[in-house]
This record gives sequence, C-alpha cells and structure tokens, in this order.
Amino acid sequence: MRMYDLIYTKKLGGALSPDQIVFWVKGAADGSIPDEQSASLLMAICWRGMTTEETLALTLAMRDSGKRLDLSAVPGLKVDKHSTGGVGDKTTMILGPIVAACGVPCPMFSGRGLGHTGGTVDKFEAIPGLNVELSEAEFLRSLSETRFANSAQTADIAPADKKLYALRDITATVESIPLITASIMSKKLAGGADALVLDVKCGPTAFMKTLEDARTLAQSMVNVGTAHGMQIRALITRMDAPLGWAIGNALEIMESVEILRGEHAAGELAQMSFRLAAEMLIMGGAASTLAEAQAKVQASIQDGSALETLRRFVALNGGDATSLDDFSRLPQAGQVVDVLASQDGYIADIDGRSLGILAMDLGAGRRDRSDVLDLGVGIRVLAQVGQKVAKGDLLFQVFAKANQLVLPDLYLSTLRLTMNSTVQSPWLLASIGC
Amino acid sequence: MRMYDLIYTKKLGGALSPDQIVFWVKGAADGSIPDEQSASLLMAICWRGMTTEETLALTLAMRDSGKRLDLSAVPGLKVDKHSTGGVGDKTTMILGPIVAACGVPCPMFSGRGLGHTGGTVDKFEAIPGLNVELSEAEFLRSLSETRFANSAQTADIAPADKKLYALRDITATVESIPLITASIMSKKLAGGADALVLDVKCGPTAFMKTLEDARTLAQSMVNVGTAHGMQIRALITRMDAPLGWAIGNALEIMESVEILRGEHAAGELAQMSFRLAAEMLIMGGAASTLAEAQAKVQASIQDGSALETLRRFVALNGGDATSLDDFSRLPQAGQVVDVLASQDGYIADIDGRSLGILAMDLGAGRRDRSDVLDLGVGIRVLAQVGQKVAKGDLLFQVFAKANQLVLPDLYLSTLRLTMNSTVQSPWLLASIGC
Repeated sequence: MRMYDLIYTKKLGGALSPDQIVFWVKGAADGSIPDEQSASLLMAICWRGMTTEETLALTLAMRDSGKRLDLSAVPGLKVDKHSTGGVGDKTTMILGPIVAACGVPCPMFSGRGLGHTGGTVDKFEAIPGLNVELSEAEFLRSLSETRFANSAQTADIAPADKKLYALRDITATVESIPLITASIMSKKLAGGADALVLDVKCGPTAFMKTLEDARTLAQSMVNVGTAHGMQIRALITRMDAPLGWAIGNALEIMESVEILRGEHAAGELAQMSFRLAAEMLIMGGAASTLAEAQAKVQASIQDGSALETLRRFVALNGGDATSLDDFSRLPQAGQVVDVLASQDGYIADIDGRSLGILAMDLGAGRRDRSDVLDLGVGIRVLAQVGQKVAKGDLLFQVFAKANQLVLPDLYLSTLRLTMNSTVQSPWLLASIGC
Repeated sequence: MRMYDLIYTKKLGGALSPDQIVFWVKGAADGSIPDEQSASLLMAICWRGMTTEETLALTLAMRDSGKRLDLSAVPGLKVDKHSTGGVGDKTTMILGPIVAACGVPCPMFSGRGLGHTGGTVDKFEAIPGLNVELSEAEFLRSLSETRFANSAQTADIAPADKKLYALRDITATVESIPLITASIMSKKLAGGADALVLDVKCGPTAFMKTLEDARTLAQSMVNVGTAHGMQIRALITRMDAPLGWAIGNALEIMESVEILRGEHAAGELAQMSFRLAAEMLIMGGAASTLAEAQAKVQASIQDGSALETLRRFVALNGGDATSLDDFSRLPQAGQVVDVLASQDGYIADIDGRSLGILAMDLGAGRRDRSDVLDLGVGIRVLAQVGQKVAKGDLLFQVFAKANQLVLPDLYLSTLRLTMNSTVQSPWLLASIGC
C-alpha cells in the first residue's frame, strides 16, 4: 500500500477503504508516513469530504491507536456528553451529578481550555485538592461509588488523534466535518460509554456559524455513533452570549453549585443542562419519556441529591467538599471592578467570544498551552440580552488579579445596545434523535 | 506573516497576494516553512486554483529563488521552445538548428528523461564527446557563435521549484494547472529568452488527456507569459503514437539528422518541428507571415545550413561532429531483433506510452533517477497508424543490449489492429496566439 495512492484517490473524490485508513492512521502515528503526505491528505479530505463508512473507519482507527477503557465492571448503561465548546459552558459540572444522582453512571473525560473557551478540567481544578487527573483505577472507583467520574483525558487515549490534530492545527485543516467527527468520536468511543448526547453549539462566535453547518456536524457524529451501534442524540444550541453569569474557573464552580441548589432555574444554563441531563436519563434507561426524565431531574435538584453527588465526587477524589458550600474556600480574585452602563438602551447582543478573550487575558484561560491560570479571576456577566439598561447600571463585575489594569470600555464594547427592545431567541435550535 | 493564514485563505478559495507568495516560496526553499504546511497549501491550490496574478507571482518567486541568465550580450530576440513531453519527441534537436540557421538565437535548457519519456539532454549525450552540461560562459559562447545552445538545467536555476516539485511528487499535487504553469514558466523565465513557443501534448497517453485540459494549461502559460511581457504562443498537438520512427537516444540523433537532411519531410515529426520553428522565426522577427517563415525553414533544410549549424554546435562543445554524418560513430546496440506482424489487419492505434516503457526497460530511459542509460538501445517504429499490415510484415526493430531477452509479443501488444482501414487524425489540434 502506498500513501501516494490514498492521497491521489481522495484528491479525485474517491473513497478510501477501511484498510487504507488504518494504514494511514498507523503510519501517521508511528512516523512511517511523513507529515507532508498526511497534511496533503488532510487538505484533500477538507476538499472532498468522507462517507460515513470512511469517517467511521477513521474514528475506529484513531480509537484503536491507544488505550480503551473497559467500564463493564460498573453496572448499567453508561452515558456521556460532549459539547463543541462555548464561553461559560459549565454544563458538565451540573448535569454529571444530576444524571448520576438519578441512577445513571456518567463517565466523562474533559479537556483543558485554550483560547476563548474554558476547559472543564480547569474549572474542576478550582476546587482545592480535587484530583483532576485520575488513574484508570481512580476513575472506575469514582464511577462505581458516586456514579460520576470526570478526569483529564490521558495521553494514551487516541494518540493518533493527538498527532493528527497537531498537524491539522498548523495546516488549516481543523475545519472539516469528517475530521472533527472522527476526532471527537474516537475519544468518546475509547472512553467506553454506551450512549452519548451531543451539544453542538451554533452561532456567529461558535465553531459552527450556521444552523446548516451545525446540523451537518451533528448528523455526521450521530451517523458514526449509530453505525457503531452506540445510542446517540444531539441538541443544536445557540451560542452567542456567555452561558450563565460566570466566566472563569472558581466563578463557574460557584454558578454550577447555585444551579444544583435550585437557583437560576429559569435561566438558559439551567434549562440547557436539565434538558441534556433528561436526554441522558432516557438513553440510560432511567426514564422512558422526556416529561418523566425532566421530573427526575427536578427531583434530584429539590431533594439535594444532585449536589450531594457532587460533594461525594469531590470528597472521594481528594477535593475540599466544604468549598462547595463555603465559596470563600475557593480561589479568590485580588480585586473586583464594577463595569457600569455608560448610556441608556436595550442590550441587543453580547459577544461571548470577546468576553472569553477578555477572561483569558485576565488569566482565566490560556493563549498558549503552557500558560498558567489564575483560577480565581474571571467575569460576572450581569448584562442579559433583551434587558433594558440605564446609564450607571451594573453590567459586569471583573474579578482580576490585584494591581491588574481593568479597562471598563473593553467590556462595554462586547455589548451592542439598541434604542428598541429586543427578544432573545430560544436556546434550542434543533435536535437529532431526541 | 503566518503560513497558516495563507493556507486558510486558499482553503476558503481566496487569492494570495504577491507578498504572501514570495513569503511561502522563500520559506519553502530555505526550510523555515515546514513541508507539511507547504503540502497542505499545495493541495488547497489543486482544489481552489490560482488567478493569473497569483500564478505569475508564484512563477516569479520561483524564478527569483535562483540564478537568472543574462543573454543581453547576444544580439537579437532570443526564442525558446518548451514541450510538455512525449515519446520520441526530438523536436528540440531539429528546430533549434533550423531557427539558429535562419538567424534567430535559440537558447534552450533541457532535462533528463524519467519514466516513459526521454530527455533531450540524454539524447544529445549520445553524440560522443558533446558537453551537455555547459557553464554559463560556454552556453553564451555557443549561443553567440552558432546562435544555438542547449544544456542541462543547472541546479541553481529555480531551486525553489525543484524543492516544491519533490514535495508535489510525493503528495499527489503534481496535477494542477497553476502549479505546472509556474514550474515550467519559472525555469523558462530564468533562462532569459524573450519569446517562447509551447508544444502542449494532448492525448490518452499524455499528461493532458483532453483537449479542454490541454487548452487550459496552454492558456494558463500564455497568460502568465503575456502578463510578464513575454512573447508567447502555444500549439496543442496530438500525443498517442511515438513521434517519428526513433525511440532511444542515439536512434533519435540519427532521425533528427535525417530530418535536417530533408528526409521524412512529409512525416508528422518533420511537419511539427517545421511549424514550431516557423512560429519561433516569426516571434524572433525573422519572418512576418507563417508562409514566409515556412519558406525560410525549408530553405535552411535544402541549403544544408540547419544541419551545418548542428555540426558547428556539436564541434564547438567538444562533440564528434563527424558522427552526425557517420552513424557508426554513435553508440550502437548489441543486437537488433525484428518484430513481425503475427496477423493481418489495419493499425488503429499505437500506444506510445507502452513503447516508451519498453524502451526504458531496454535501458534507453530511467525508472529511477539514479539509473544509468545505454545510449545505443531503443526501438525503430516502422508501424504507422492507418497502415495495412500483412502477417510477417516488419513492425518494429528492437535495438537491445547483447544477450538481453526481447519478447516480440510485448511490442505487438502496443498495437491495436482492426479489420477496417482507419485514418490518423491531424497532429495539430489547436493553437493559441499563432
């Protein structure tokens, strides 16, 4: 088999066989195929696409390049969630404990943040002492004892994806539906869950800009999961303003706990988390209708079992569970700067991406992978789309390092004000398989 | 400037600026841009194409990566020819001396053969003693004294093209109109000629399979040449059967001399060479109409001045000019094997590509760049498309090494016989600028 022939076939728009795809992925991972040939094939895939069969073969080849977790020791259908990433997205920390409290095991692997979006691992790391890099034994113990486990992805999961992603990152080949699909699904399949709910973000500041693109990506992942015999559903959700009030690691822990306490229940973050959790309960066999699932979700909030599950997860994995009830034990900012409205008007939209970058510049996120975070800094977003504001109203609180220069105008420039009232569109844009 | 942005721009179908193209070509040549990024951009160019402005910028950047020849010391408009390559194509050795004999300086750089097509440098090397790797001073002296100079391309001409071509060769990105255009034109512009005639081959065994593709490539090269202020014309010629009777280096010298002596004047090789020469005379200012140019070409054959120019060129550059009149002084084959028709019929077509490969296997061409040629071996093709043959007729003479096994059936399989007479289509398919 010659790599040249694979590139040439794809360049002309043909399909690669599973054997050819395994040959490529192995060769790319072990270095026997030079990076320039992989780069050329990656661009040809961006051009010509891949069939579901090819995408599944790529997914499986990348999964099989590393370790696969065996969760069979934990009884029941294990259900995972994946989000394509948004600013202020802390749904994992909310729905994981809810789903677990409702009886469905929820094994989750997360990433660290880069650029304007945060990473769930960084957020959990704001809980003092919590081990966010669990060994396989620790992960299984957490899943068995609390039905919830969350850990950073280890290097031995889908190493071929890591290698190819690094190549895609410098060759402008990240944006390709089959390549994104295989990258996500290879890691999800290696993680060993039986079912998966996808939250595909859509909007001008998300990776998928249009509903059509988001739907195509969601459908591609659903196709691959289904072809592999996995239960899989997708929600396509609006991404423009930040999700919830908190951006920044400790702040997002606080907001997650507030939601698990039953606060902000009518807000978008709670509604989205509850709906994703309900889909997971259905797939996990804990409910047969959406209404039944949603009632169970509500009960886990009202009886405190969801929050208690989070406390047990934290305590089991070395974390300070009392910090969940006493936020003064979480990392704190050196100063808090209020940002006030400089004029009257209605908030037409909020640029979540820009706020994500401002939070990154505060130290809540990484510009480079080597950056060290300040887990206490971030932004409290009080402004809401559709809100009427008067000059002097509090719109943001900036949690910064002591002595860090905070320029309120930068924050105000993320808001678009209009003279007339506007209405926020619904957060759920579409769903597949729900 | 970041290479990533260039790749991303081209991936989305945008145009690169001249500055961006210079940045890429320099970086690719000096190694500061990794090959995987260049490979990805090359595939994106195959996908999205390039405007004439981009192709010209790429051409100039590759030209400027190396040495440029200054021919201004030689008076008159210098006219060059480029062929996209065919089996048995020895037009350079015929038209160069003709054009020079008619008063137009003809500076030509040629390549060595690889695969089924031979290289003009290898053919000239069959003349004992001839120096086919002229220094700049030797090249200029030959051009001044005989108005004809032919030499192997030196490594310092367009080294960026050499580097990128090697990358294209392993990444299935050779076939791209703008990349082919820039590769050819960069070397031609570096060679310093004022005008250029292109012979773009077209046919099932040529690089360009359809008239449409051939026309697109020809037009692309004409556009770039014109945009650079160069006189440029293109003929699109049929390529299927070998051109002329000779395949193999010494054999092709013999055939070229025969044509310059006035033999085979009605044949395709002579007609094509004379027409290309006539176009060159017009561009060089030696004739104002095609009829006038063709008359001059004929005169140079009839008065022997074209052949005498070849003799002078050979003698000046260390070659044995008497070998042009006494072919026994040229490299000889160890044995000659006749291939006879095994049945009656009409020859419907001849597969030049397969004959080229058979000649390569005899030792006339290279499978790998490091192969050493036997300059005496090759094939005399007596079979002609449209010819009626009877069983036992002589169709090929195979000039092989002594003891080399020759299987006549391999040669017969390159012919397609029919029961009815067929007519060969004309060799000139189209022209641009003529």
